[in-house]
Amino acid sequence: MDRSDCISPIDVRYWNPTIAQFLSEEAFIRYKLQVEAALATVLHAYGFFGEDILAEITQACATVMVAEIVAEEARIKHDIRALANCIRARVSDRAKPFVHYMATSQDIIDTANVLRFRDTMTHVLLPGARELMRVLADIALREAATPQVGRTHGQHAVPITFGFAIAGYVSRLGFSVQELEWHTKNIRGKFSGAVGAHNAQALFVDPELFEFRVLGELGLDACQHSTQIAPPEPMARMLGEVVVMLGIIANLADDMRHLQRSEIGEVSEEFSEDQVGSSTMPQKQNPITFENNKSIWKIVMPRMMTVYMDQISEHQRDLTNSASMRTYGELLAYASVVLGRMTHAMGHLSVNRARMKENLSASRGSIGAEPLYLLLAFLGHPDAHEAVRKLSLRARAEGRTLMEAVAAEPCMAPYVERMTDEQKALLQNPEAYSGISEKKARDIACYWKKTLKL
Amino acid sequence: MDRSDCISPIDVRYWNPTIAQFLSEEAFIRYKLQVEAALATVLHAYGFFGEDILAEITQACATVMVAEIVAEEARIKHDIRALANCIRARVSDRAKPFVHYMATSQDIIDTANVLRFRDTMTHVLLPGARELMRVLADIALREAATPQVGRTHGQHAVPITFGFAIAGYVSRLGFSVQELEWHTKNIRGKFSGAVGAHNAQALFVDPELFEFRVLGELGLDACQHSTQIAPPEPMARMLGEVVVMLGIIANLADDMRHLQRSEIGEVSEEFSEDQVGSSTMPQKQNPITFENNKSIWKIVMPRMMTVYMDQISEHQRDLTNSASMRTYGELLAYASVVLGRMTHAMGHLSVNRARMKENLSASRGSIGAEPLYLLLAFLGHPDAHEAVRKLSLRARAEGRTLMEAVAAEPCMAPYVERMTDEQKALLQNPEAYSGISEKKARDIACYWKKTLKL
Amino acid sequence: MDRSDCISPIDVRYWNPTIAQFLSEEAFIRYKLQVEAALATVLHAYGFFGEDILAEITQACATVMVAEIVAEEARIKHDIRALANCIRARVSDRAKPFVHYMATSQDIIDTANVLRFRDTMTHVLLPGARELMRVLADIALREAATPQVGRTHGQHAVPITFGFAIAGYVSRLGFSVQELEWHTKNIRGKFSGAVGAHNAQALFVDPELFEFRVLGELGLDACQHSTQIAPPEPMARMLGEVVVMLGIIANLADDMRHLQRSEIGEVSEEFSEDQVGSSTMPQKQNPITFENNKSIWKIVMPRMMTVYMDQISEHQRDLTNSASMRTYGELLAYASVVLGRMTHAMGHLSVNRARMKENLSASRGSIGAEPLYLLLAFLGHPDAHEAVRKLSLRARAEGRTLMEAVAAEPCMAPYVERMTDEQKALLQNPEAYSGISEKKARDIACYWKKTLKL
Amino acid sequence: MDRSDCISPIDVRYWNPTIAQFLSEEAFIRYKLQVEAALATVLHAYGFFGEDILAEITQACATVMVAEIVAEEARIKHDIRALANCIRARVSDRAKPFVHYMATSQDIIDTANVLRFRDTMTHVLLPGARELMRVLADIALREAATPQVGRTHGQHAVPITFGFAIAGYVSRLGFSVQELEWHTKNIRGKFSGAVGAHNAQALFVDPELFEFRVLGELGLDACQHSTQIAPPEPMARMLGEVVVMLGIIANLADDMRHLQRSEIGEVSEEFSEDQVGSSTMPQKQNPITFENNKSIWKIVMPRMMTVYMDQISEHQRDLTNSASMRTYGELLAYASVVLGRMTHAMGHLSVNRARMKENLSASRGSIGAEPLYLLLAFLGHPDAHEAVRKLSLRARAEGRTLMEAVAAEPCMAPYVERMTDEQKALLQNPEAYSGISEKKARDIACYWKKTLKL
Repeated sequence: MDRSDCISPIDVRYWNPTIAQFLSEEAFIRYKLQVEAALATVLHAYGFFGEDILAEITQACATVMVAEIVAEEARIKHDIRALANCIRARVSDRAKPFVHYMATSQDIIDTANVLRFRDTMTHVLLPGARELMRVLADIALREAATPQVGRTHGQHAVPITFGFAIAGYVSRLGFSVQELEWHTKNIRGKFSGAVGAHNAQALFVDPELFEFRVLGELGLDACQHSTQIAPPEPMARMLGEVVVMLGIIANLADDMRHLQRSEIGEVSEEFSEDQVGSSTMPQKQNPITFENNKSIWKIVMPRMMTVYMDQISEHQRDLTNSASMRTYGELLAYASVVLGRMTHAMGHLSVNRARMKENLSASRGSIGAEPLYLLLAFLGHPDAHEAVRKLSLRARAEGRTLMEAVAAEPCMAPYVERMTDEQKALLQNPEAYSGISEKKARDIACYWKKTLKL
Repeated sequence: MDRSDCISPIDVRYWNPTIAQFLSEEAFIRYKLQVEAALATVLHAYGFFGEDILAEITQACATVMVAEIVAEEARIKHDIRALANCIRARVSDRAKPFVHYMATSQDIIDTANVLRFRDTMTHVLLPGARELMRVLADIALREAATPQVGRTHGQHAVPITFGFAIAGYVSRLGFSVQELEWHTKNIRGKFSGAVGAHNAQALFVDPELFEFRVLGELGLDACQHSTQIAPPEPMARMLGEVVVMLGIIANLADDMRHLQRSEIGEVSEEFSEDQVGSSTMPQKQNPITFENNKSIWKIVMPRMMTVYMDQISEHQRDLTNSASMRTYGELLAYASVVLGRMTHAMGHLSVNRARMKENLSASRGSIGAEPLYLLLAFLGHPDAHEAVRKLSLRARAEGRTLMEAVAAEPCMAPYVERMTDEQKALLQNPEAYSGISEKKARDIACYWKKTLKL
Repeated sequence: MDRSDCISPIDVRYWNPTIAQFLSEEAFIRYKLQVEAALATVLHAYGFFGEDILAEITQACATVMVAEIVAEEARIKHDIRALANCIRARVSDRAKPFVHYMATSQDIIDTANVLRFRDTMTHVLLPGARELMRVLADIALREAATPQVGRTHGQHAVPITFGFAIAGYVSRLGFSVQELEWHTKNIRGKFSGAVGAHNAQALFVDPELFEFRVLGELGLDACQHSTQIAPPEPMARMLGEVVVMLGIIANLADDMRHLQRSEIGEVSEEFSEDQVGSSTMPQKQNPITFENNKSIWKIVMPRMMTVYMDQISEHQRDLTNSASMRTYGELLAYASVVLGRMTHAMGHLSVNRARMKENLSASRGSIGAEPLYLLLAFLGHPDAHEAVRKLSLRARAEGRTLMEAVAAEPCMAPYVERMTDEQKALLQNPEAYSGISEKKARDIACYWKKTLKL
Repeated sequence: MDRSDCISPIDVRYWNPTIAQFLSEEAFIRYKLQVEAALATVLHAYGFFGEDILAEITQACATVMVAEIVAEEARIKHDIRALANCIRARVSDRAKPFVHYMATSQDIIDTANVLRFRDTMTHVLLPGARELMRVLADIALREAATPQVGRTHGQHAVPITFGFAIAGYVSRLGFSVQELEWHTKNIRGKFSGAVGAHNAQALFVDPELFEFRVLGELGLDACQHSTQIAPPEPMARMLGEVVVMLGIIANLADDMRHLQRSEIGEVSEEFSEDQVGSSTMPQKQNPITFENNKSIWKIVMPRMMTVYMDQISEHQRDLTNSASMRTYGELLAYASVVLGRMTHAMGHLSVNRARMKENLSASRGSIGAEPLYLLLAFLGHPDAHEAVRKLSLRARAEGRTLMEAVAAEPCMAPYVERMTDEQKALLQNPEAYSGISEKKARDIACYWKKTLKL
């Protein structure tokens, strides 16, 4: 299918049928029809009409064409009244009055939004996040003992393992998945009428029970209080956590991008045989997935401000969230693109352990400055940090390793003598000074594999 | 055409062919082909090849199908190389080497973006903004003398005219149009190769002249300096001004919305005979265009942060703006929706002058507190503001007009006596205390009609 | 004290000692010293030194002067090393090596931040939010049965009660308080060294137990994984919920502002006898607290983007969050201002029930359109919504009430005849058509009073 | 002076007297008093009172204490009325009525803001930006011919010079300075009274001339139209350009940070002898200024949303920008910190030319892939890009240079034979393939030195 007359990249480059089945305009209309059908079911249960009318309405909701609704809306300029009219056009005169009966538009829209967003979370984003978690946890285990230099400020600091670095993302994503699950459960429908006080329903039924039953048909709970609209916060929180999750992935993407720099070369994205890196530099192999994921984060993150602004709706609602709410689905769609691409990229990541080892050795022992200072201090040196700082500067200036500088400094001797052989070995070979990196990598990967059943 | 499988509202509800001809994916590809053709023209002018090859390439650029390019990109995962391959497939072996010759992808993409955005500005947004200006200037003139209460903090303050209020928007929009024109002129193409240093071109030609001629074919200037990409600021400034313009319109929309409140009722959006205001409250006539315009502002405004973040691209460019830049067109598309709708709504605005007069009178003269205090002070009252403040409170408490309270207060008499008849008349009838509202309304409307030739 | 040399309004106009005791620079330093003292306590427990040295360090942490630290930092340009030096300067040579031993700066900073933010939440924001809840719940109960017109799109819709409107905010704030409590519990300290792998500690102790004990001294848990810094998400979520809460309050503030409009006049902020509303219009009484609260929301909300951007820190951390993290405290400080002011304003809100009744009656029965259409439909009218829509338009055009228009329309008679007396009464007096507003107001107020023990 | 009871970092760590003299609360009050004095001058010129009263008011404006005003505001809760009262308290009864005469608060506040922001721009930010420009232009000249590898996607691309890279920032900053100068000229005062219609003035004088003269006393122009407030757009545009400028600097900071990475090592920030890089890793020398500048950009950039939201003020103004406008000065203060620090860091940047050369050579000739493909194509190879892409992959796989791979490929021979000696030399030594980097670096540096008289 040709999508090239579209404007938004989410409808061209990033569109896919998996996400469209929940988030397209057509899907939205189908969800709204589902809510109208649920209403009919409960009206029937309350005795407003018989089986035959229920069958008529249910059938109409299942068969009405999206194009009819679009045409009717063009005529009357009201989306839900158009939808109701199209259902009404397919049922008998006896059934007509009970289509959309006692409902206000937003009862249908808010509830349909919750349904489709909940389905998107349940069927796409949460499984996608878990799949990424699984891939990352496997890397954390596989590389739990792979030595790598730890970097702070882009400068070599002290050693870690590559698995430890990845385990940090496993942990951060794991908690994000748990938050997402919580917030997905927490978004709720509403069926409380034009201003939320169940005014219409109170003419005929027990309103709170009625709302409970309509939403129950759809597997949803009701909000404690709604106006014409559901309170915006549960949705805002869920979307906020989607943004948080994309922030974690953007951080991972940045880390991988930088590790792929020509001068570092510790990892690289898989590159297919036929793939072209540059239209003019034939040799280029670029971290495009990582770059792309960072870029999508830049699209999505600021849109959280739109969501925050939509918290404000005057009195029982103004309609200044009409257009803006229609863009929320894009956030989920972009998130699904990121999850899919990142899972692929990390699942096919090429790890260059030789280069990691080489980079770790490149600082000529200066990464041993911390253990040296700690051992000196432990052995009673009164100003160990300052002494080692100066030794490091001198070693650098003289092109020597740190331990060569120590050996050349007489006042260090009394301390070095008192060190254990193990301690001396560590200082000579500070690449092994990686703390509990390996243990942490394994523990965290196992914890989340078990907790989330990955 | 059915657009209901799309996700973004800009591709469903707000899509229209006018804007799609500049901003759709297809349009983007056509613009890129136009740049490739310009390159061929200049290569020919430099003698790289003869008329026949130029004709081949130009013809290929004009006839290549978008679908071919989409398919090729799916294979090689590089958009511009795919486009080049599709042109190459349509030309002779002798022509093949010179397709996309000496160009880097971003030479094509950045330049095509500038072309399509400039065209969108020139053919859609700037005329749209001028049309809105024209409608508003006409209202300002028509209502230049229509009395209305001025409101600050939502409270009645002192009188203005409705034309004066509208003239404020004419003025603000007018300056915005001028800024937009400036920034539209200022966005520039680039044809400086992979890192901006014209490395490739320097092998064969005078690079700066070459860039000048390629861009000149397209009616564009070159950036003073570019890397792989054009400097992002000129585009950021243009988009920033689009956001500023939408902010002005959002303010106008909010003003109109509030003036349409049931209790105020000074204006209302036109409502067609067949239009439905609420799916459950048949009497409702809502300010939906004004609400919608505010809502679209909430979509667009935060996206400026995406543009700001795209200013940062490491070294000669990273690709973390790949996806995000693809969304810029949406900003212009939304802006065009807002301009069209707002022009229609304001052009058909119903102004209720009787209600304006009624509201102006409702404060029972307390809007005369300012001139009273000023005249008292002028006549030597040492603490006029405080005296009038207390009189106002008393009048309100006693349900009297302010001037009744003045009359009842003996120590006011000496001052009132010394007022001119004209001054006394004004205090008795403070509705006329509207300063130079009418003059300002006329002057500003005329200034912009003349300046922008509306 | 004169604060007028400050630049930020949070340090001038909105500064107060309650919040400064947790969030000022001095407070921050005190919290950092507290962490250093906790470290000393655990080092002693592990036998690194005896009681005497512990006493020295603890005493130094309690007595070191903020000014000394500021001066030392000016010299060596490193905040935590400066702090350590100042402690060291106050202890014996034997104690010196163990000051800040095995800690990296961020162990101290991140943990101190968690401590002070947790204290701010526990001692200021959460009690403040509960106090606002209490005030609002009391209004909801008191006004549970006060009739008010429900408004959608700023237009009269169908009736509610004022208590019902307020109960919506009680409900939204209640869930926000619960989320805030959850996220406050969830922010955690870190004591895992320079790159998070406990490299230093692994030389001497069981690292995870050591971290557990240091943080345990401070009443904190440890992060599952940290690098040089704690994972940013728990803090981001807590601040995100603060923003959500301010969004709810901004919505309430907007509602109150608009209800205070001259033409509506249903509520007003208390105005003291001496207070001046305008420097030139002595009669003005403005909703300045509500305006101010909205304004502060505009300050705080976008700053969430700073927090989101701080999620990205390369490898084991870059320092591009150094300055930005220092602004997080401002968010909490602004939130405390909002809570205090809003609680006062709502606690002293003047409610004009007569005006509410008047406004409710002003629509001349058109608010009865919904029940009329529902009853007609229930009684078998095949196109009730459309029929009532047209009747409403006619009534408005003719200046009649809706029921007068119904009476004048012969084809309505068969339906009206079949209505019960109660139904007819409701249509004649649609002000009573407020659904379960009163019940909802009471239920929600009571639920939260009980749940949060207000 | 001890600033440690402050909360905002702009009042602690980043506070300095240069910026405080324009942006502190005290400075703001002084500017407001200056506006009141200008008003008195013009009232006198219009004959409202004589020299003696003018002298009284002018003297009072010059001598009133900030603390008095603060105390008065605490009593009456209105900032400008408090200021007027304090002036009044210092003048005779005859002068009292004419203090703040015909002015509304916002006439004073908006005009004072324009004055202090214009002064900050003129005396601090614009000179600061020009100084940074000067430093950068000098680097561009000095390093115009210093070879460096161009990098795209963090990968080696084709050569540039370091001066060329810096020249890009000179160019981007240069245009930003010009925009800033334009927008600084464009911010305007207002003196049009409570709702902008000059209601008060129209009682006594020619209002537009009166406004022109008051603002003229202060060296300002008037807005074409104002309400109670000046139109917000000119200020928004000026602040928007400040954000744009900080974005350019953040990009430069990121580039420098990454060039300082341990593995790249091409530049480094100056590090003083006494400076400490890490509290636990004595060897660390970190790019803290570059990190800090990026971090401050993260503070400032999102605040542009606050400015955009402040564009919306209902009718003749609501007060929902009261608190938010008070934070604008912080943006300028942060910008001044960034400019100062960046100028210092770049002025003392250590450039490691040997390392640049080493990195350039490290890719073993693969940076010559572009010229090779272009020359092959020029010589008639029908599929040169694809051929070179495959050769590059093979060379990488076999650990050979690209030209070794070419030599080993028989079908390349016919093309290589036909190359000129110069072309062959370039392919053997692609480090020289830097296009017109040097020329561009020099041209741009000279252009801006001349244009801005640096």
